[in-house]
Formats: sequence, C-alpha cells, structure tokens
Amino acid sequence: MAIRIGIIGYGNLARGVESEIRRCPDMKLCGVFTRRDPATVSIKTPDVPVYSVNNLKDKTADFDVMINCGGSATDLPVTTPEYAGLYNVIDSFDTHATIPEHFAKVDAAAKANGKTAIISAGWDPGMFSLMRLYANCVLPEGQDYTFWGKGVSQGHSDAIRRVPGVKNGKQYTIPVPAALDAVRSGSNPELTTRQKHTRECFVVAEEGADLAAIEKTIKEMPNYFADYDTTVNFISEEEFNANHARLNHGGFVFRTGTTGFDGENKHVIEYSLKLDSNPEFTASVILAYARAVFKLSSKGDFGCKTVFDIAPALLSPLSGEELRAHLL
Amino acid sequence: MAIRIGIIGYGNLARGVESEIRRCPDMKLCGVFTRRDPATVSIKTPDVPVYSVNNLKDKTADFDVMINCGGSATDLPVTTPEYAGLYNVIDSFDTHATIPEHFAKVDAAAKANGKTAIISAGWDPGMFSLMRLYANCVLPEGQDYTFWGKGVSQGHSDAIRRVPGVKNGKQYTIPVPAALDAVRSGSNPELTTRQKHTRECFVVAEEGADLAAIEKTIKEMPNYFADYDTTVNFISEEEFNANHARLNHGGFVFRTGTTGFDGENKHVIEYSLKLDSNPEFTASVILAYARAVFKLSSKGDFGCKTVFDIAPALLSPLSGEELRAHLL
Repeated sequence: MAIRIGIIGYGNLARGVESEIRRCPDMKLCGVFTRRDPATVSIKTPDVPVYSVNNLKDKTADFDVMINCGGSATDLPVTTPEYAGLYNVIDSFDTHATIPEHFAKVDAAAKANGKTAIISAGWDPGMFSLMRLYANCVLPEGQDYTFWGKGVSQGHSDAIRRVPGVKNGKQYTIPVPAALDAVRSGSNPELTTRQKHTRECFVVAEEGADLAAIEKTIKEMPNYFADYDTTVNFISEEEFNANHARLNHGGFVFRTGTTGFDGENKHVIEYSLKLDSNPEFTASVILAYARAVFKLSSKGDFGCKTVFDIAPALLSPLSGEELRAHLL
Repeated sequence: MAIRIGIIGYGNLARGVESEIRRCPDMKLCGVFTRRDPATVSIKTPDVPVYSVNNLKDKTADFDVMINCGGSATDLPVTTPEYAGLYNVIDSFDTHATIPEHFAKVDAAAKANGKTAIISAGWDPGMFSLMRLYANCVLPEGQDYTFWGKGVSQGHSDAIRRVPGVKNGKQYTIPVPAALDAVRSGSNPELTTRQKHTRECFVVAEEGADLAAIEKTIKEMPNYFADYDTTVNFISEEEFNANHARLNHGGFVFRTGTTGFDGENKHVIEYSLKLDSNPEFTASVILAYARAVFKLSSKGDFGCKTVFDIAPALLSPLSGEELRAHLL
C-alpha cells in the first residue's frame, strides 16, 4: 500500500513535490488542496483531484501525510498547527528565529490529536542543519561556517522589484571565493558579512526610469544590500527572460576543528549543494521526511519532530538489512 | 553524572579516544583494558587505571559504555559480540562485506543481555555511510561516488612493508583531480578503478636491496596496486621519519542526480573530509555515538544499531530545545 500524500498549495514548492513524488515508488499523490476555486487550478498529474482547503476536514480518511507548501512569513505559522489537528503534516518553515515557537504550537496540536508532524524540512533549515549538528558533535572544538549560493534569493529579488522604476529583477547571492578558500585552509578566519558574500542584481528598468537612482536605492537598502558589495546590472526584458528564469541555488557548510592532546591536528568538514532547482530539491527532501512521518505515525510516535529527531534509516524505502548491506 | 567510558585496547585509535574524550564535557575516562600485562602499559591520562582484559567480567558496575578499539580483521568479529554480553559497547568495524554477519552476532548478544551496541562507527563506514544514505533518500534518481584520500592507507602501507628488501614504507591514496572535476560537473561519468585513484608509495629500502625489483613487486601486486597507476619513491630513513609520520586521511562522497518532470534539473551533493589525524577523527565520531549508546541504553532500547538507526540529536550533549534554537 503506497503512502497517500496530499499537497496543500500549488506554488513552486508544491509543483516540485508533484514532480518528485514520481521518483518515490512507495508514495502516491492523492490530492491537491488550494485556496483558489479548484475548478481554476489545473495540475500536471492526470486523475488527481484538486480540492478546496475548505474541504480539508472532510478528507481525513484519504491521506496519510499532508505536505504544507505555504509560505513561512504568514501562512505556515497559522496553518501547520491547524492542519496538525487533522493530519500528519510536514512543512519547510524557514524563519530560523521563530522555529522554537512554531515547534511548540505544532507539537501541542499534533499530540492532542494523535498526529505526527515534522517542521523545517528542506535544505536550510534541513540538510544544512543536519550537517551543522553532525559536525559539531564529531568536532566539539571548532568553528562553523555557512555560505549560500551561488543562487537566487527570493527575498532579495522581491526587494529589488519593490524599488520605484523597476519592472523586473533577480538577485544572486554569491560566496566570496577567497573566503571559501580561507575556511578550507583550516585557518579559522573571522569573516564579516561583507567578506562572506557578494550580491549581484539583474534589473529590468521601466522605460525612462532613472537608472542611477535605482542603483543607489538598491545598494543602500538596509538589511538587504547595505552590508554587502552589491553590483547592479541593467538588462533588457528579453535577456532577463532568456537567462534569469531558473531558481538555482546551493551553498556550503563547513566545520573546522582541532584534535590531539595539544590541539595539534586540524580537520575540515565540508558539505556543499549545487542545485539547478531550489524548489524541486527542497521538495525531494520533504518527501523523504514525509516517509519518516508516516513510519513514526504508524508506530504511534506522535508530536512534532525536526530533522534532528529522525533516524536516517526512516527516510529510506529500503529495510535496515538492505541499508546495512549496501550503503554502510 | 558523567558517562563512564572504558577503552579496550591501547593502539592508535584508543589513544585517539583518550585524547578526544577530554573535549566531551559529559564523559569521563574510567579505565583502559589491555591484553598485555597492565603494569607495562602507561597511558597519558593521570589517575586512570589500566586493567587486564581478563578482568572485564569483574568491572561491569563501573562503566556505562565500552569502546572496543581492536582491529577489524580478526579481533572485533570475536570480541564485540563477547563484550556486548557484558557492557554497552561500540566499535569501528570496517570490513564492509561482513557487516551484516557482525551486526547479527552483536545484536543477538546485546539483546540477550539487555545491552546497547553500535558497530561500524567512524568515517567510512560512519559519516560517509550517512552521507550516502541521506543523499540517496533525497535524490532517488542519481549516482553515487566515493573517493578516498589524499591519505595514508594502513593496509597498503603494510603490504609494502612485506616486500623483500623494504625496511619501511607508506602508501598514500590520492583521488584523481580530473575524476573529481568530472563528478562535480554533474556529467555522471563512468569511472574505472584506475581513473578514480592513484597510489603513491614512499619506501625506505634496506642497504643493497634491488630497487627495481622492489618497485616491480609493488606495482604488480594484485588487489593492492595492479589496478592503479602507482608511483614508488625511494627515500632515506631520515626523510621518511621527518615527512611521513602523520596518519592524515580524508575523502569525498558525491551524489549527482536529476529532478523535474523531464529530468531537466541537475543537482550535486558533495561531502568531504580533510583530516590531519585519521585515528583522532575516528575516535571523535565514536565518542559522539558512545553518547547515543548511553542514551538508548538508559531508556531500555537494547540490541545492535548502526549510524543509520541513530537520530542525530542523540549525538549531542545539548537538549532538543537548544539544538532547535541554535543549529536548525
């Protein structure tokens, strides 16, 4: 019996789940829930129904795990606790600062209703968090470094598009090669925000817009750009559509540390991702953890979990025997 | 109350455990067990007793977890199942082909005696196995690559030293840079043994030895060298001692894969270790998993486990709340 998966929402991440579930032989997409009129939402997979989110409470017998594909800013903090009262649920909540609060709400709802939930699954938080945890445990004396990119930052791209005179824009976060090299050398450098990443913007300006003013506004924007070396490139709409349509991303997690009676030995742990499609890779991670949600729920292990609480074997469709024989 | 750790054996790995336990604030080294006469074994840590392995059965009340630092070839297959009848135990068994058999024996002994065991903790098997498992689960459609080095292979160094006329020798396994680059590009290359690694040997010959014969014997040695491009460098004993005393190692685990409705997006996951001291890093990993052994045993979760069965949070001295707030 395949694990019956539902998707809530139908944006980039949800479409990634729809695409990647076809690579999970033990899962079946059984429905998509939308806030829009379901008649107006056409999905790619044949014979899978689209429902209104208003019908979520009527379908609890038909799904094993719901994947909540809402946004972290305002949607997930409200909806994941709500859905955890009805379904086993997983989300990719990525506002690091409010994870403890989100965890507490989802945990209470899930426990009260005999459901299992995982929050903050994806690559950061998610795979990168795991790498930080493992590396901290195996090198207790050391230093952590996380770099993002080269890749598209949705938040920074949105910020560019809010600047007057900007028709379209995309922002790439780029790790500074010299900083990566310094970390790899094991020299434990102290790096400022500016030394770690640069920001590269591609902007389509409205006709007659003041380009110098746009560039100045972007470069001086507090929080988003002011602390970085930022370059602004004005390009045509054709070039924008031809070369900047992808949602690639990636990054690096390092821990460098020392061992030995006199701290005389250095070690460098490096994990990196180079992703053509941020939403599809995130969806793939979520699906692996959805499998764990199902297994935990099946044995009555309820409440909210994160990637830290999940034994890796739970992510695999293979048995313990198979994993030990082929992957250990 | 600190976790009371015992070490069985006193070779390179055991000395690594002795060194690295000082970086684990929640653990205490409470004894070293040796096959030699304990009076002849002097350890670095003051006030820690050295016992004979013959006394293992008398000390069960004094230790929470035993770290078995024996060798994989002949020692661990016999002793870990034996010790699992007396203690919670962990080893770094690394003969990949016989892991299932070793697991079964340790599992039976541990379960029969209410003990918890973890086998095959280290970096390969260990961290590299974890990386293969995670990457396979999040990129089900893809290909795996593992490279070792640059680093010292004990087995190959031993093989060199058995060649007639060789006084001392060390062998470095080196990944071929072009092969690493091809994998990183996401082109999914098919690589032969020869294309993946080269082997570099540093040999101190006995006086008057036939150098050409030594070189030929090494290069043609089946299994060890014949399938590789091998270089043999003859050096003086002084140079050997000055430049080839370290036990550095490391390596790379990659998975490259595709996502998308038409498999149109590529992803590259890369994990690498650059280790000055193979035994000290291995010891650090073992200590993190010894913490998990203790936690599982304390809640009555007995039997044999591997790194695949251990939720990452169990490796940390921090609470779930602290981990979620700071590392997620």
